Amino acid sequence: MNMSGARERLVVIGGDAAGMSAASQARRLKGPDELEIVAFERGHFTSYSACGIPYWVGGDVTDRDRLIARTPEEHRARDIDLRLRTEVTELDLDGQRVRARDVDTGEESWTSYDKLVIATGARPIRPDMPGAEAAGVHGVQTLDDGQALLDTLEGTRGRRAVVVGAGYIGVEMAEALINRGYEVTVVNRGSEPMSTLDPDMGCLVHEAMEGLGITMVNDAEVTKILTGDDGAVRAVVTQDREFPADVVVLGIGVSPETTLATAAGLPLGPHGGLLTDRSMRVRGHEDIWAGGDCVEVLDLVSGQERHIPLGTHANKHGQVIGTNVGGGYATFPGVVGTAVSKVCDLEIARTGLREKDAHRVGLRFESVTIESTSRAGYYPNASPMTVKMLAEQRTGRLLGVQIVGREGAGKRVDIAAVALTAGMTAEQMTALDLGYAPPFSPVWDPVLVAARKAAAKVRGSL
Amino acid sequence: MNMSGARERLVVIGGDAAGMSAASQARRLKGPDELEIVAFERGHFTSYSACGIPYWVGGDVTDRDRLIARTPEEHRARDIDLRLRTEVTELDLDGQRVRARDVDTGEESWTSYDKLVIATGARPIRPDMPGAEAAGVHGVQTLDDGQALLDTLEGTRGRRAVVVGAGYIGVEMAEALINRGYEVTVVNRGSEPMSTLDPDMGCLVHEAMEGLGITMVNDAEVTKILTGDDGAVRAVVTQDREFPADVVVLGIGVSPETTLATAAGLPLGPHGGLLTDRSMRVRGHEDIWAGGDCVEVLDLVSGQERHIPLGTHANKHGQVIGTNVGGGYATFPGVVGTAVSKVCDLEIARTGLREKDAHRVGLRFESVTIESTSRAGYYPNASPMTVKMLAEQRTGRLLGVQIVGREGAGKRVDIAAVALTAGMTAEQMTALDLGYAPPFSPVWDPVLVAARKAAAKVRGSL
Repeated sequence: MNMSGARERLVVIGGDAAGMSAASQARRLKGPDELEIVAFERGHFTSYSACGIPYWVGGDVTDRDRLIARTPEEHRARDIDLRLRTEVTELDLDGQRVRARDVDTGEESWTSYDKLVIATGARPIRPDMPGAEAAGVHGVQTLDDGQALLDTLEGTRGRRAVVVGAGYIGVEMAEALINRGYEVTVVNRGSEPMSTLDPDMGCLVHEAMEGLGITMVNDAEVTKILTGDDGAVRAVVTQDREFPADVVVLGIGVSPETTLATAAGLPLGPHGGLLTDRSMRVRGHEDIWAGGDCVEVLDLVSGQERHIPLGTHANKHGQVIGTNVGGGYATFPGVVGTAVSKVCDLEIARTGLREKDAHRVGLRFESVTIESTSRAGYYPNASPMTVKMLAEQRTGRLLGVQIVGREGAGKRVDIAAVALTAGMTAEQMTALDLGYAPPFSPVWDPVLVAARKAAAKVRGSL
Repeated sequence: MNMSGARERLVVIGGDAAGMSAASQARRLKGPDELEIVAFERGHFTSYSACGIPYWVGGDVTDRDRLIARTPEEHRARDIDLRLRTEVTELDLDGQRVRARDVDTGEESWTSYDKLVIATGARPIRPDMPGAEAAGVHGVQTLDDGQALLDTLEGTRGRRAVVVGAGYIGVEMAEALINRGYEVTVVNRGSEPMSTLDPDMGCLVHEAMEGLGITMVNDAEVTKILTGDDGAVRAVVTQDREFPADVVVLGIGVSPETTLATAAGLPLGPHGGLLTDRSMRVRGHEDIWAGGDCVEVLDLVSGQERHIPLGTHANKHGQVIGTNVGGGYATFPGVVGTAVSKVCDLEIARTGLREKDAHRVGLRFESVTIESTSRAGYYPNASPMTVKMLAEQRTGRLLGVQIVGREGAGKRVDIAAVALTAGMTAEQMTALDLGYAPPFSPVWDPVLVAARKAAAKVRGSL
């Protein structure tokens, strides 16, 4: 640490949400005469919305630059020394310095730091199989990935797309490709799409996707990707079938990018992400912070670490880190596991624990599933909604909620997200004073209907 | 009370949401051999959605019967002795009996009770002025009111409508009449429409209503209603102007209907509603319950009683009363004052305290207002949203939220409703794990943006 009172140097590794939020917030609190900020980013872009890529590919967002919240120039204008196309290749903790390589020239140099932020993000899981690197096979993690996919789509005559994986990215990419007029097949390892839901709720997503004309293939393990004479993808092969494909999108998740951290001996959690304390400081390291897709976060419901790569968390981490680096005080207490998505007009949301999560962490629960509508039943466009709720046995404490429906279903999960954070019981939730008017909700909001049933089941099991 | 073990009789006064929910829930818990249930309703209908009337009048709901959740026949089929067109005219508490009059025949008789539920609802505030009872002047509290208004609309050639009052009913009726092709003028006593919001937020409603072609007249006191030679309404007159009108809708609120309760000496609160305990029992009376629009409820944020006539509360009250009458245990802890409404595509929501409420109850606060969008800024149909948040000085405790925007604005208030119930601070709210995906929210949900700003302002004022 710089003890002289002279200006300190903050080094940030990674120029997307967590890293640049941290840099920006630190800059807000400390001017350039107090704090020098150097940020390394190996790609071309900063502060962009990876979550927006499916909508750019699908055509809902026409201009790539709209996904960029803040350009390199904007960061530089705020006295952040941003070095694009520069990859950090080594952390020297004892020397308080990082080695960085210019991606284009190969030139390397060391930069010392007083404070360090690690925001290296996540890397896509690429299946280790023949053909996985073929032309026409695309991930969608970065803007460069998105551009490459769009180039393939524009250069390909065939209209058959296979999406591998049926999680958030998978279903969003299925929507994007349907919107572009492709015949879409989703090949999924699990028994139902959206394994972030229990299978009985994933089944509703399955039915809806079929209804949208998407071919959903469950329990399918991709064994190889076939290519034609031109080296371009031709088909996706599973254990028992072959799916012709002119383009393949891989949506099989990401894992924390912690190569640097691992080499430097920083503490990693059970999912391979960096472990931090509540202030987002790397555990045991006074002057090193980490945030975004490369860290694990505390799940407040299970009490265990999870890896949840999601822009909204990355932004919060960056805000907290920047505040602490800038001399303020902020914490990130953890998550409850909220996520929302859609495939065409089907909205899918979850928060808290699924049944298997609860089993895994030793929590016994009652589970209820109810059908209701988004608006009063008599109001136009009232659409059906299924809400599943888990509440702990004995205490009645809310453990999780999953919602599948149409317009108005997705963001209703926020009610449960706040209730989970507050540790409410299902019984307490039955009295929640939620917004009611016929265009917005039945007189009993669907979440309240689920809470009533869950509370009754908990009482019945006492 | 019936001490013999023979079957008891429950008498319910009022056949709408609270009364019939109580009756139904009591019946669920106790069969007809244990509990006789007699319900008196002076009108023609049971269990209907008064909140739906504006949408029926406006044409969104085409069939009146769709507003009826449960018909008299359905109640009778569940062994509830429902007596329509029968008005209770006296409570004899010492004798544990009620006197009821057949509205059509005038015949009166006494019915004894072991347990009594008072669910007499509210009565519209009718201005005490010349012309207020003229043909073409309508309230919209009951289905009969709605039908009478529809009859006027169908029988009137003129297309000029004046709505008196700019609260929920007023703005909803303005929408209904615009949808029917009327020229609509809303005459409002306050400085802005929606006095359930602070004026700076009501101002946004004002602008939007003008944008919809509704003429909004604020600071206007209606002094009389002019009629023509045929006795039908001709104009609404205020202190300084005259507004030609072919039809007039009164939306100036309701007050608790407690004539019977007052005569019987039951305890009333500062707003003229019955006072109950947490089990919805009338205070000091072991075997009398009350719920719905005739009671006052505890505002959990201010700690004081309020009168909030709203179907969602009435249903909860009925559920709680029925459970307790049926031998179970349930409570209604209170409200946080959540309400949501819309006028065409403008959504309006609030929960907790307004600035003047906080002043009135001695709470000092910081107030912030932010602009954000319903979806990620780059996503199609992202619409602007204004969120105002009040947080207590020193503690930072959330005191209230108001939201005005388009699609996706209204139900976002539920986040704040749950946070208020849980007693969260603005600082705690900044870490809430709310659902994020570009079609559903910016990466910082508008409520989080407001919470961040409120938390910073509270810290700044320490």
